[in-house]
Parts: sequence; C-alpha cells; structure tokens
Amino acid sequence: MAFLPAEIIKIKRNGGALSFDEINEFILGYSRGHIPDYQMAALLMAIYFRGMTSEETLSLTKAMLHSGEVVDFSSLTQFKVDKHSTGGVGDKTSLILGPIVAAAGVPVPMISGRGLGHTGGTLDKLEAIPGFNTQKSLPEFIELVRKHFICFIGQTKEICPADKKIYALRDVTATVESLPLICASIMSKKLAEGIDGLVLDVKYGSGAFMKTPALAEELALNLMSIARGYGKKVTALLTNMDQPLGRYAGNSLEVEECVAIMKNEKFIGPAGYDLYQDTRELSLRLSAHMLLLAGVGKSEDESYKIANEILVSGKALKKFEELCSIHGGALDRLPKPKHNIIVTSEKSGFVHGFHTESIGVAGIIIKAGRAQTADIIAPTAGIEFHVKVGDEVQAGEAIFTLHGDDKDLLQSALPLLKSAINISLPKIAKPSLILKILS
Amino acid sequence: MAFLPAEIIKIKRNGGALSFDEINEFILGYSRGHIPDYQMAALLMAIYFRGMTSEETLSLTKAMLHSGEVVDFSSLTQFKVDKHSTGGVGDKTSLILGPIVAAAGVPVPMISGRGLGHTGGTLDKLEAIPGFNTQKSLPEFIELVRKHFICFIGQTKEICPADKKIYALRDVTATVESLPLICASIMSKKLAEGIDGLVLDVKYGSGAFMKTPALAEELALNLMSIARGYGKKVTALLTNMDQPLGRYAGNSLEVEECVAIMKNEKFIGPAGYDLYQDTRELSLRLSAHMLLLAGVGKSEDESYKIANEILVSGKALKKFEELCSIHGGALDRLPKPKHNIIVTSEKSGFVHGFHTESIGVAGIIIKAGRAQTADIIAPTAGIEFHVKVGDEVQAGEAIFTLHGDDKDLLQSALPLLKSAINISLPKIAKPSLILKILS
Repeated sequence: MAFLPAEIIKIKRNGGALSFDEINEFILGYSRGHIPDYQMAALLMAIYFRGMTSEETLSLTKAMLHSGEVVDFSSLTQFKVDKHSTGGVGDKTSLILGPIVAAAGVPVPMISGRGLGHTGGTLDKLEAIPGFNTQKSLPEFIELVRKHFICFIGQTKEICPADKKIYALRDVTATVESLPLICASIMSKKLAEGIDGLVLDVKYGSGAFMKTPALAEELALNLMSIARGYGKKVTALLTNMDQPLGRYAGNSLEVEECVAIMKNEKFIGPAGYDLYQDTRELSLRLSAHMLLLAGVGKSEDESYKIANEILVSGKALKKFEELCSIHGGALDRLPKPKHNIIVTSEKSGFVHGFHTESIGVAGIIIKAGRAQTADIIAPTAGIEFHVKVGDEVQAGEAIFTLHGDDKDLLQSALPLLKSAINISLPKIAKPSLILKILS
Repeated sequence: MAFLPAEIIKIKRNGGALSFDEINEFILGYSRGHIPDYQMAALLMAIYFRGMTSEETLSLTKAMLHSGEVVDFSSLTQFKVDKHSTGGVGDKTSLILGPIVAAAGVPVPMISGRGLGHTGGTLDKLEAIPGFNTQKSLPEFIELVRKHFICFIGQTKEICPADKKIYALRDVTATVESLPLICASIMSKKLAEGIDGLVLDVKYGSGAFMKTPALAEELALNLMSIARGYGKKVTALLTNMDQPLGRYAGNSLEVEECVAIMKNEKFIGPAGYDLYQDTRELSLRLSAHMLLLAGVGKSEDESYKIANEILVSGKALKKFEELCSIHGGALDRLPKPKHNIIVTSEKSGFVHGFHTESIGVAGIIIKAGRAQTADIIAPTAGIEFHVKVGDEVQAGEAIFTLHGDDKDLLQSALPLLKSAINISLPKIAKPSLILKILS
C-alpha cells in the first residue's frame, strides 16, 4: 500500500481533495479486506462532513465500478438505456416502461434493488409473481437482453462489490445521507450495466429521500455530471412524491395495477377520475425520454407518441408477459390478498397532503416492505389509495384500504395510516406530477 | 442495549448533545466488545466535527473512568496530588517535582505514559535506569505510595480500559486531534489515580500539541472544568514549548540532567548561563503549585521556597534514589552513549527559534522516541542543545550534539536536525518560560 489509510482519512477530514489513486487504493483495499471497517467508517464520516468535489465523486464512482465487473454488451450494438428512480411509495413505473422501451427495440438491461425502509423495490414487486426468478448469472443476463431486449436481475456478487460492502457499513454508521456517497453508489451500479443512456426519476417531497425540489435538483445534477463524465447520455425528471404514486403500494397489488394499465383498463375513483392515471402518465413520460435518448423519436412529443402507441396497442403487455416467461413467472397465478380493512375519513374537506413516508412505514408494519434487509416480504400486503391531493372527501368516505393475509397486522397499521393524511377545508389545487426536466 | 448505536452516532452527527446514558452505554458497549470498532470510529469522527458540550465531555470522562477501576486511596488520608503535562521535547520535570513533593510529605501517585510521536514519556526515561521496573499491580502501587509518598506506574489493564481501546482506534482513524476526546482521555486516567489535586502543564508552541497560547488555554480550561466537575483542586500553567526544555532530549540523558539538577550542579553553556536552568525552574514552579494545592505553603512564593529548600538540601535527590530502589533501578549504572556527532552552526547570528517538532522527529530517527507504540527505544540515544532562543552564535560553533550507540542512525538524523533551528541576524529577546497561571 503506497498510502497510509489514516493519512488519507486525515486529508479528507481536513477538507482536502483526494486524488483518484488515493480513493482507488482505499476503496480496493477495503473491498479486498486489507483496510478494516473502522478506517472506512472514519473516512465515510469525514466525507459526510467535508463532501467531495465533482472530480472526487467521479473517482469514487470509478473505483467502486471497477471493484467488480462491467457487463460486456459488445455483442449488442444497439443503444442500451435504463431508468433509475431515487425511490418512493407506490413507484412501479419500471414494470411498464421496461416493456414499452424493449418493445420499441431498445435494449433495457435492468439491475434492480430490493425495498428498504419506506420505499419499495422492483425485484420485490416482480417476485410477487409466483415463480419469477431474478437470480441469473451475468452471461445469462447478457444473453436474455440480447434476445428479448429486457431482463431484470439483482446486484450480483460481480457487480460493484465495494459498493455492496460500503452500503452495508453506511447503514450502521449513520453515513447514508451524504450526496457524494449516494451518487457514487447509484452511478457505479448503473454504469456497471453497460448502458449508453440513463433516465433519472429524481423524486422530491414527503415520501422521497430529498424533501424539497431544490435538494432533488442538486442530486439530479450530481448524478448527471457523473453519467456525462462517463460519456453516457442522461436526462433527469424531477417528479412529485408528496403523495403515493397510483392506486396501490404493495408488491402483488402494484403488479396488478401495472398489468391493468398495460391492458388499457381504468379504475375510476370516488372523485370521478382514473386512479391509474399518474402511474400511466409517469411511465409514458419516462419511456419517452428513454426512447428519445436511444434515438427513437426526434422530440419528446414524438417519442411519447411512440411509447403511447406501444402501450395502447397491447405490445407492452405482450413484452411484459414475455418477460415473465423468461424469468419463469406465472402471471396468471398472481396471488390476491385474503383480507382488507377500509379506512374512512373522519371529516369532510379537501385532501391537502399525505405524510407519504408514514404510509411507507405503515407498509413495513403490514410486511409490504422491509425495516431490515433480512426481513421477509408478504407479497399480497399493501395499501390502496382512494383519494389524491386536491380531491374533495366527505366524512365517512373511504380514503385507504389495507390489504393482506394477516388481519391482525393490518389492524396494527391503522393508527399510523389514519394519521398519514391531512384533510382540511379550503379547496386546494392538484400538484403537477413532473416539475422539471433536466437534460 | 437500550440505544441503537447508529442512532447515537446520528444524533452527534446532526450536532445534537448526547445524554450521559447514551454516552455511557456506547463507551461500555465498546469497551466490552458489544459495539464494533467501525461504529466507534464513526462516532469519534462525528465528535471530531461536532465537538461536545462541557456536560458531554464530563459524561465521556465519567464513562471512560468507570470502564475500569479507580485507585482506592481510602487508606491514605493525606491530600494526594499529581501533575500532567500535555507533552513536549525534553520535558522531564516529573522526575524532579515528584521527589520534591513526596519529600514534602505529599503523596504523588503517578500513572504515567510512554513516548509516542515527537514527545517523550516519563516511563521510558525511568526505564533507562537499569532494572527500573514500572510494572506494578494496583495494590502494590497503593502500598508504595502509602509508604514512600511516590510511585510511578503505567496504565494497567484495570485503569480506563475504554480509553486504552479508544486511543488505539483514534490513532488509526485520524481522530486524535479533538478537544473533548483529548480532555476525556487525559482526565479519565488522572481521575483514576484517586488524586485530590492536579497541576496541569499545558504547553504551547512549535513542539507542543497546541501550537498557540490561545489553543493551549482553551485545552487548559476544558481540563480544569472536568477536574472541578469531579471536585478536584486544579491549577494550570501555560508554558513555552517553542524550544526543547533543558539540556537534553533522550531517555538516559534526561535522567542524567535531572540527577545533576537534584545534585545542584550547573552546566554553563557557550552563552555563559546554566543550561539546566529552565528544567530546574519549571520543575520548581510546578512543585510549588502542587504543594500549594496540598496546603503546604500559603502562597505560590511560600510553596516555591519550600520546594527550593527541598531541592537545594538534597532531600529531593534522596527521595529520587529511594524511588529508584523501590522500583529496582540501579541509578549508579545509568548507561552512557558510546558515540556523538557535533552539529555546528553554518552562520553567525541569533537563535530565532526551533522547529521543535522536527527535533522530536529526529529523536525518533535515532530511536530516542517511537513512531509506533511497538517500537523499541534506545535508552542512550538523545540530542543535546547547546543554545537557546535569543542566544548569539558564531558560524562553526556547536549548536546540537547527537548522542547514541549507533553512529549510522545518528548520521541519518543530521539533515533534519540541521534544518530544525532558525539562526538570523537581528537580536531577539528570550521568551518567558511560563506565560500564564490559571487557577
């Protein structure tokens, strides 16, 4: 080791910038077990306080990326694109936009995560489909993307092992909330997919990691800067997570919602409009930007029309069914929850807002989500949303329905869920779903 | 465990203050191996950045103190006093003031440290005396202090085990330089001695941990606040460490200097004054304050006169010889260095200053000090100082002499040592040894 780990920690602690070589030796040394957890913990906390320059963040991303393999898509000449969301409640767009973009002939190699804390994970949703297997080797993954233009897997041991080890350490050392660490963690995994373009869905609001649009924009710009540093095409959408997305949050229920949307079904809620509308719209907008990056369509409008045509024509559903069969999933055997509890409004007024993070925590209580990585998910557990911000409700009307197989668990989530909505008298406008597009 | 360690780290990271229970559970959990190194490392770095309130620092000291035993001096009713120095080059006053104060009938229970980095340690100096054994059990220590009013031991496994473990971790995680951590580490060990009063020698300058008087004063006030929080009498002297103290830095050479002073010898240097003068004076002033705290003498002047009388009369030397025999040390067999190299001035002028820390590092090169705790000390290796700040020197006159048994090692320290003195033309005043007394 050319550098003393304690000296590198001291440079960062004192507010200095680390060179690529210093960062790389530290990350690889840690990944290979030559640098102990306690020195990495001290460096992470120093980074939390001192931050990193964009050059350092790029170095960190590079070091984490090259701690493992980068998927070799040299056998696939087409433009490959993926989407990354910073996470939210009821955020299920991957299940729709993946099939749309793949059906347009653009390969979508998705390495996805599992839910942790109040936000859900794509792999958990897909695994609610009986038999759906997301454990594939990298060669299988490459072959399936080559053949079907789509495949969903989890982070294998070959992909960014340093990130995996560092993320686990951050979780127990109060160093999760650091912009450069978040950026490097996200981008190293996305870059390992061997993609050419990336659309970022950066969420802000009460159910998002970034509570304000300004913070979300800062995160988006940092992520974009790394992507561009690697010569990738990138677009970021700042989207609203002040309320859950769509009709459901919960794994099998979200699959059901996505299938309904791909079947062009509507579900008219008490306020008289389609409760699938925001999921459908966000999925189409994200699909449009993925297609646009891939050169399918010459403007957002044109790409949107192409995406919408694929959805309306049933081609997206067909691709989703194809995806399920690739992964061994029996979509026709999607389980249904055995019980439900309807939560009604105690007063009349307009929905002013949700404590979306609390809804996510209610989801953890009913086992739709995880508090700890080792927790087991109940696939049918979930929450249904009957109303959205701006809707008028009368006292006694249904606002949520809790679904699941364990009635007692559902019952125990009631107090938190009831407190997670704010109904007030003055009329209030509906917020827009997409605040800003950065490209 | 009532508290989640990661939650405690987060509170501190976010700038909050920790309760005694939170700090205590964390420290004891770590000391007992229930909390891993990486969580302690993250907490230490968070403390480095966020600091601690004086209440938190007191809690930390208390938790570290009670991770082990407090010496039980209930069998000894007299006022017990000790001195703590924040460390410097050639800082050897413990070997003189200990015998002076003990000879006055005031018990001095000294739990001392070893040298690390550029500063020396009392135990290493004493162990330069053949046979001198500082490894004694706590019951033996208590009995010897009771009988002889003085005993020197190292930090046993019963004394502040949490501090020992945390200090080793701080050393490799770049978290040494934190005021609350420094204060708690110093004070937990001193409080464990079961003393009633403490005199602090807080050094500032190029050879001290605190480079400016303001920083030294801040440290002093923090240490005093903890001591008072425990109902101890305390006085702090802010003393100059912009140049080495006395004639020698190096273990057997420093013992030789102390014995010469206790024999009332002088060593007149090229500038025509006694080069033992500052060591003698600082030892007497610190002794005076220790005696004053113990009620021996009613003013600093009166206590100083008592201390001086003990020194001049030979009682201090007699007590030192008694101390050596308690510990099995054969003072008459003190080893002498086999070789020396004289360093002469390349120009004429006045000594404007020393890079005192570099002199300490030169001491490490010749093995008078340690870079790592596991390093072995060469007892006879050391550096002799012929001139002090303010002295006039002519080109070609001796300024340093390197002493030791390994000529090649001495040779290798020459370039650094030569660069560690600043000789310039304008005349300059001699700095005062003691800047301020806080009581």
